[in-house]
Amino acid sequence: MRLTLTPTNDPDDYSFAHPIRTRFAETDAMGVIHHGAYVTYLEEARAALLRHRGHPYDEVRADGIDLAVLELYVRYRRALHFDEVVDVHVLLGGLTRTSFQVGYLLTVAGQARATAVTVHGAVDAEGRGRRLPPWLAELADPSR
Amino acid sequence: MRLTLTPTNDPDDYSFAHPIRTRFAETDAMGVIHHGAYVTYLEEARAALLRHRGHPYDEVRADGIDLAVLELYVRYRRALHFDEVVDVHVLLGGLTRTSFQVGYLLTVAGQARATAVTVHGAVDAEGRGRRLPPWLAELADPSR
Amino acid sequence: MRLTLTPTNDPDDYSFAHPIRTRFAETDAMGVIHHGAYVTYLEEARAALLRHRGHPYDEVRADGIDLAVLELYVRYRRALHFDEVVDVHVLLGGLTRTSFQVGYLLTVAGQARATAVTVHGAVDAEGRGRRLPPWLAELADPSR
Amino acid sequence: MRLTLTPTNDPDDYSFAHPIRTRFAETDAMGVIHHGAYVTYLEEARAALLRHRGHPYDEVRADGIDLAVLELYVRYRRALHFDEVVDVHVLLGGLTRTSFQVGYLLTVAGQARATAVTVHGAVDAEGRGRRLPPWLAELADPSR
Repeated sequence: MRLTLTPTNDPDDYSFAHPIRTRFAETDAMGVIHHGAYVTYLEEARAALLRHRGHPYDEVRADGIDLAVLELYVRYRRALHFDEVVDVHVLLGGLTRTSFQVGYLLTVAGQARATAVTVHGAVDAEGRGRRLPPWLAELADPSR
Repeated sequence: MRLTLTPTNDPDDYSFAHPIRTRFAETDAMGVIHHGAYVTYLEEARAALLRHRGHPYDEVRADGIDLAVLELYVRYRRALHFDEVVDVHVLLGGLTRTSFQVGYLLTVAGQARATAVTVHGAVDAEGRGRRLPPWLAELADPSR
Repeated sequence: MRLTLTPTNDPDDYSFAHPIRTRFAETDAMGVIHHGAYVTYLEEARAALLRHRGHPYDEVRADGIDLAVLELYVRYRRALHFDEVVDVHVLLGGLTRTSFQVGYLLTVAGQARATAVTVHGAVDAEGRGRRLPPWLAELADPSR
Repeated sequence: MRLTLTPTNDPDDYSFAHPIRTRFAETDAMGVIHHGAYVTYLEEARAALLRHRGHPYDEVRADGIDLAVLELYVRYRRALHFDEVVDVHVLLGGLTRTSFQVGYLLTVAGQARATAVTVHGAVDAEGRGRRLPPWLAELADPSR
């Protein structure tokens, strides 16, 4: 297990937030958002962070680099429901030469619903490990 | 609208069937299988048909051909539920020089739940139309 | 087949539009948005339309009514790609006593990518057909 | 973090295995199975385990109990590809009065592709915590 980030419940600890409205297709027969849909929310928020900081993911990929997911951790605190607007708070940290981590806090109207961490590695088109692109280090949140 | 096939409710009209057990992730807050999941069932059944007839889809794609979906029609008759085993009956027909159609009947324990048609065209890696591979004509159901 | 609406390629024919940014999770190995994801876009745009017109779907459902999908038709014209913003143009029409239709045009920067129609029926919690709620008739686009 | 199970790479450490063929809809533009699809595979394998041991999940839910996911961890080792048959090896352990854990090893032709752990709690229809049903303790793998 490489993941070392411990995401907090305090939105102020995160440098970026991206709102996502839940979809009916993402609900399940328990009447809440299916736990698998959160993985998609995390990914959408990562893409929004990269776009916001000037490195849209399709440009990253056009450079021959993919940021593969190596590990994923989600802690579900309170259920999400259809048509809620989820603020996905994001921070970037835990950089090594070949990997980095992203921490997440999902809130609705300020209430924590879930936290999560993903660990990523840069890979080329054949899936081989590569050094992180230099700009990634500049995106990392200080003190993380 | 290119689609001309009219799928019947009689399993005997279909030359191939593929069973799929519904997943909990595919349910929605109405307590039934979400209507979008059916599209995935149709695709899985198409892939099973091609595999069964000696042309697995990854080999088709390795030949530089994709069978893009041009049109999709689904008629929902009775809801599907979690953990049901759906028999997806399939037939291939309506071939032109560049496109073909697939008809589907979804049953559970013999009861019709949905019918569907997809229209497909052969395209190359850049998405340009191509002639259908010759083996496709041999796969088509007679009299369709 | 109940569907009778013929969605045009002209955005001016639609009374409402809802933007959706495509997700990486919705791409497939052809490098484009998977055809099944469109079904989710249609549903999100329907929900946005109902919300915009004062009848959010969770309130509709709280009244004991679901608007089940009876038929679905999609015509794929040009592929969608990751990170594109799709404008889903929507119109409501084809009302009968128990069903209505929704027409869709998907554009990116004004270029038509797909058109679609869904047919819906009002059902109660047990899935039995019900009369359409009266406010639905008021939402319908004139001359449709 | 409640999760304490450490899933091994040795299939012999698992008491049950469930095969799943990957779907084309689950691929992404990297040409491999999207990391979010694994969550669905884990859930399908859990449902298969419960069914195999005489407690199909729909019966569990009919008793008014849901087995909510509290935590999820996945470690991705090697990519999965379209049309591969994944053996999802499963073990049940880490029981407390109100929660249990499931460990997973995903292999293709014996090669480890991913490991995972989920933590579950029994909840009633309103999402309130409940004691685990007694039969769950009997399903747990010894020494776990």
